[in-house]
Amino acid sequence: MPQYDAYLIDLDGTIYHGKNPIPEAKRFVHRLQEANIPYLFVTNNSTKTAEAFAEDLTRLHGIKTSKEQVYTSAMATADYVASDSFKKGLKKVYLIGEAGLEEAFTRPEIQLVSYDQADYVVMGLDRSFTYQKLMEATFAIQRGARFIATNADTNLPSEKGMLPGAGSLVAALKTATGVAPTIIAKPEAPIMQGALKRLNNPKKPIMVGDNYQTDILAGIQNGLATLLVYTGVSTKEQIQQKEIKPTHEVEHFEQWSIK
Amino acid sequence: MPQYDAYLIDLDGTIYHGKNPIPEAKRFVHRLQEANIPYLFVTNNSTKTAEAFAEDLTRLHGIKTSKEQVYTSAMATADYVASDSFKKGLKKVYLIGEAGLEEAFTRPEIQLVSYDQADYVVMGLDRSFTYQKLMEATFAIQRGARFIATNADTNLPSEKGMLPGAGSLVAALKTATGVAPTIIAKPEAPIMQGALKRLNNPKKPIMVGDNYQTDILAGIQNGLATLLVYTGVSTKEQIQQKEIKPTHEVEHFEQWSIK
Repeated sequence: MPQYDAYLIDLDGTIYHGKNPIPEAKRFVHRLQEANIPYLFVTNNSTKTAEAFAEDLTRLHGIKTSKEQVYTSAMATADYVASDSFKKGLKKVYLIGEAGLEEAFTRPEIQLVSYDQADYVVMGLDRSFTYQKLMEATFAIQRGARFIATNADTNLPSEKGMLPGAGSLVAALKTATGVAPTIIAKPEAPIMQGALKRLNNPKKPIMVGDNYQTDILAGIQNGLATLLVYTGVSTKEQIQQKEIKPTHEVEHFEQWSIK
Repeated sequence: MPQYDAYLIDLDGTIYHGKNPIPEAKRFVHRLQEANIPYLFVTNNSTKTAEAFAEDLTRLHGIKTSKEQVYTSAMATADYVASDSFKKGLKKVYLIGEAGLEEAFTRPEIQLVSYDQADYVVMGLDRSFTYQKLMEATFAIQRGARFIATNADTNLPSEKGMLPGAGSLVAALKTATGVAPTIIAKPEAPIMQGALKRLNNPKKPIMVGDNYQTDILAGIQNGLATLLVYTGVSTKEQIQQKEIKPTHEVEHFEQWSIK
């Protein structure tokens, strides 16, 4: 019997650094595969499709992955809206976001509409964001549309530096409307519930990641065990200050046994 | 001897409603003119030039005004940056804003530059705002540029509804950088100091406006008497809840004596 019967695993900072692989992480995933332990990559990044993540994992990082093994905040947001009870029947959505979000919202329960017909405003990171979109989303929410955000990450690492994240666009819309959004991504509940459902609601799952504020808090707040790997955002000094610690902490995955 | 020796007067909601005149306000300004009491229109709106405001006042509202009688948050921001001690000599500014801000920053002490050369990021309402601008401003502040905002108004009234104001764009940049800006406009000190200086530092000035959160707080926090006129944003019910009341309150300007 393994310690944990299912792994929810963050990507950037945990499995790779942007385009650079983390060898210990690759071996960790191979060990899970060999032991037939179910796992799902769970990322707050809403800009790329699950297919694009799977391709990058396979091609750049040597971790053979299918799109069914990736769960993005965009997919979690679409799952959430599709089954939400705020409006019955077809969900009419005004969408601000990139390819990953657009693809996730292409499904029979959802219709993408202009702002003046929307029952939902769904916002993710959009590097083609404009004042016009901010204004249209503001009007839609003023008219009563429900405000949903894929995530509230303030920044996104890039080769050029720390880019503004979805959270910065969300802050603009929140300020303009006075309405706080329902946030889907880690550390919030909706993405965790969606991910656990995809893993057929395992009995003893663990959330694995490099970021206390997103990954570890997501586990803590949703009743999962947690494993913090010090290959990314959070440092030991930061964790020492936290009242609630991760269940486990490792420098890298070689220190972690799945047995 | 008049009660007050100089008037700082808000515009929208106080002197007019958008394109619609307020007759009592027009007569009030005429009374000030006849009594030779100095006054200055002080607005948080940074999108239009002083000249454009003066033209609208003269043409649409029958209040003959020259550009010297208008002080915008854009002008106050340029005054502030021009005399700021953060960088000596020529101030290199990356500007996000509209015509009013661009015009105000066209002066010998200031050079407008691209984000990678900026010592200051100055942000006002920009209805051509894009993610690209947000990213460039984020990079400039990450590099150490000082973050200055014309104002933090969350909304701007328009014929279409409540538009996102400068404050919503400022919230995006604040979230992306983790840096809070120096804010120039009412109720903050810089615009009041700039306005009083233009009026040659009068001994007994009064701040007049319709909005407790901007106009009246600006007076209270900067040691001026205040007159709230109930023709705009603030209501009597709201003011009853405030611990610090305006010095004076009137329904409209016919109830106000300048003597």
